[in-house]
Amino acid sequence: MFESPLFWPAYIKEDVLYVLDETLVPSKIKYIPVKNVKAAVAVIREMKTRAFGQFLVVLNTFLLELSSDLKHLQKVAEELNNSRPTFPFAEVTGIVLGAAQKAAANGVDPRLAVAKTVQGFLAGIRARRLQRVQEIADELKDQDSVLTHCNVSGELAMAASLAASQGKQVKFFATETRPYMQGAKLTVWELQQAGSHSDRNGGCPISVALVADNTVASLMADRLVNKVIIGSDRSAANGDIANKIGSYQIAVLAREFDIPLIVLTQPSRGVASGADMPIEMRDADELLNFDGKKIFSPRVQGFYPGFDVVPHQLITKAIAINAGL
Amino acid sequence: MFESPLFWPAYIKEDVLYVLDETLVPSKIKYIPVKNVKAAVAVIREMKTRAFGQFLVVLNTFLLELSSDLKHLQKVAEELNNSRPTFPFAEVTGIVLGAAQKAAANGVDPRLAVAKTVQGFLAGIRARRLQRVQEIADELKDQDSVLTHCNVSGELAMAASLAASQGKQVKFFATETRPYMQGAKLTVWELQQAGSHSDRNGGCPISVALVADNTVASLMADRLVNKVIIGSDRSAANGDIANKIGSYQIAVLAREFDIPLIVLTQPSRGVASGADMPIEMRDADELLNFDGKKIFSPRVQGFYPGFDVVPHQLITKAIAINAGL
Repeated sequence: MFESPLFWPAYIKEDVLYVLDETLVPSKIKYIPVKNVKAAVAVIREMKTRAFGQFLVVLNTFLLELSSDLKHLQKVAEELNNSRPTFPFAEVTGIVLGAAQKAAANGVDPRLAVAKTVQGFLAGIRARRLQRVQEIADELKDQDSVLTHCNVSGELAMAASLAASQGKQVKFFATETRPYMQGAKLTVWELQQAGSHSDRNGGCPISVALVADNTVASLMADRLVNKVIIGSDRSAANGDIANKIGSYQIAVLAREFDIPLIVLTQPSRGVASGADMPIEMRDADELLNFDGKKIFSPRVQGFYPGFDVVPHQLITKAIAINAGL
Repeated sequence: MFESPLFWPAYIKEDVLYVLDETLVPSKIKYIPVKNVKAAVAVIREMKTRAFGQFLVVLNTFLLELSSDLKHLQKVAEELNNSRPTFPFAEVTGIVLGAAQKAAANGVDPRLAVAKTVQGFLAGIRARRLQRVQEIADELKDQDSVLTHCNVSGELAMAASLAASQGKQVKFFATETRPYMQGAKLTVWELQQAGSHSDRNGGCPISVALVADNTVASLMADRLVNKVIIGSDRSAANGDIANKIGSYQIAVLAREFDIPLIVLTQPSRGVASGADMPIEMRDADELLNFDGKKIFSPRVQGFYPGFDVVPHQLITKAIAINAGL
């Protein structure tokens, strides 16, 4: 099966965590070596890796900072938790810390408990994500035309690959996803990779076209898409989700044009509704720069909420990472 | 009164038409010399000037190609008409041609009729646009926060200036308007110019913030805007309008969030409804390039309708260019 580099973008080798620099994809496939929590917080905050990759970084950072000192582990957890407000890192770090504290209370070396917890977590997540790829592939029907936004870290491209191997011909439209262009840079690239893999293996073709974020209503009104699939960065107990800015308007438009909206979600872990999710206001420079270059006058003010909340009423179907995490 | 360079972006001086190169604004204020219809078609097709500027180019081109030969004038009109499908240039060129033909039939030199028609047209349009600036200023209330998309060629910035001089404090959010970034490059710049003018003249401050096109639903849901003002490239008799891609989704969202949508329109001239307006599919390279540089892999396919149609049901108020043109 085709596996996208974005599906598992961070791995440990000889005490170094290698993190795929997603800001360079697709022009360069480069891994950033991360050796401690400070470097881990930097790759998260600078969005070198996103969403799922950030969870991998958070978990693996405990292996980099392996220590019997509970206070040190506590400090590592706090630094990770504070790296980005929209993400529920505390849920994950809390579980690792809890295991360490329990081990210490039982006279066991916390290092063993941390390593076992993190490695068990990683194996479980991988199995569950592969299962979700199959569920997404089941949603893809022959002749579907799917709109997607931002990037869902490998799963959609792998599901497209699986569907193509099952004889289903599926088209995709990917939004650019300004200001970071994850759709243009990551999703288009991944779907092209999936297409090449399918071509080499005798599967159906996979086509993908890039559209400006402004094109959503036009595509829907002209019936050029019949399905929307997006990810989520955070899920609430009532079914609301937070995802990359622009998701909310796509959801409103999907309902307006009677197009089903499928969202890949995760467990809510104590967040009751979208109103309980703080929305990260990101530095306007990210809007005013393009590929690291300032493109507008220094006098221009930008306003850049990084995410928005899609109310559950607009979501046709949620495909969750089953249990576990 | 503050006058934006975008309000009147093309003028004739000594047999040369000078056209503001809006693709360079705001980094450079440069005028392109246009000496014949071929050069005029090029500045239109390459979108060196847009919307209203294109009308100015179309009209003035008859002065560049002034001739007693009706066949030549006919050919000029056809070349202009064929430059871009979404725009009703034939309505304008038809009037000029009609005047020339009528003059010839009456034994008058068609050159005189063409010059008089074009110059009368220009004077009339200018007066009507200045009147519309006042009408827009009347719509702006103290403490309003206005979302706008693309660029309305000076009128909004001039209305903002007028409102500020009347003691009204108004905030603006301008969408980037990918792929051409007219909002980021033109609208933000114009509103800043209007703000500086107001500051120098003791008017109220005018603030403007740039947002990604993805931010519209988020702004509306958070009640950060209370009014939307956009232009139109074409208007139909039933009130539908065609405007820059992304206008349709903003209109749907404005209705969703009960925010009034004000559209600056023009006479429909025989177009019954939005369905009768051909939508120009523009070269996907415009989506795949940024500031003239290819930013994505050459294998990436783009899909780029330049405009979309806003159904009249979504328009709260139309401010028309009164009669005339």
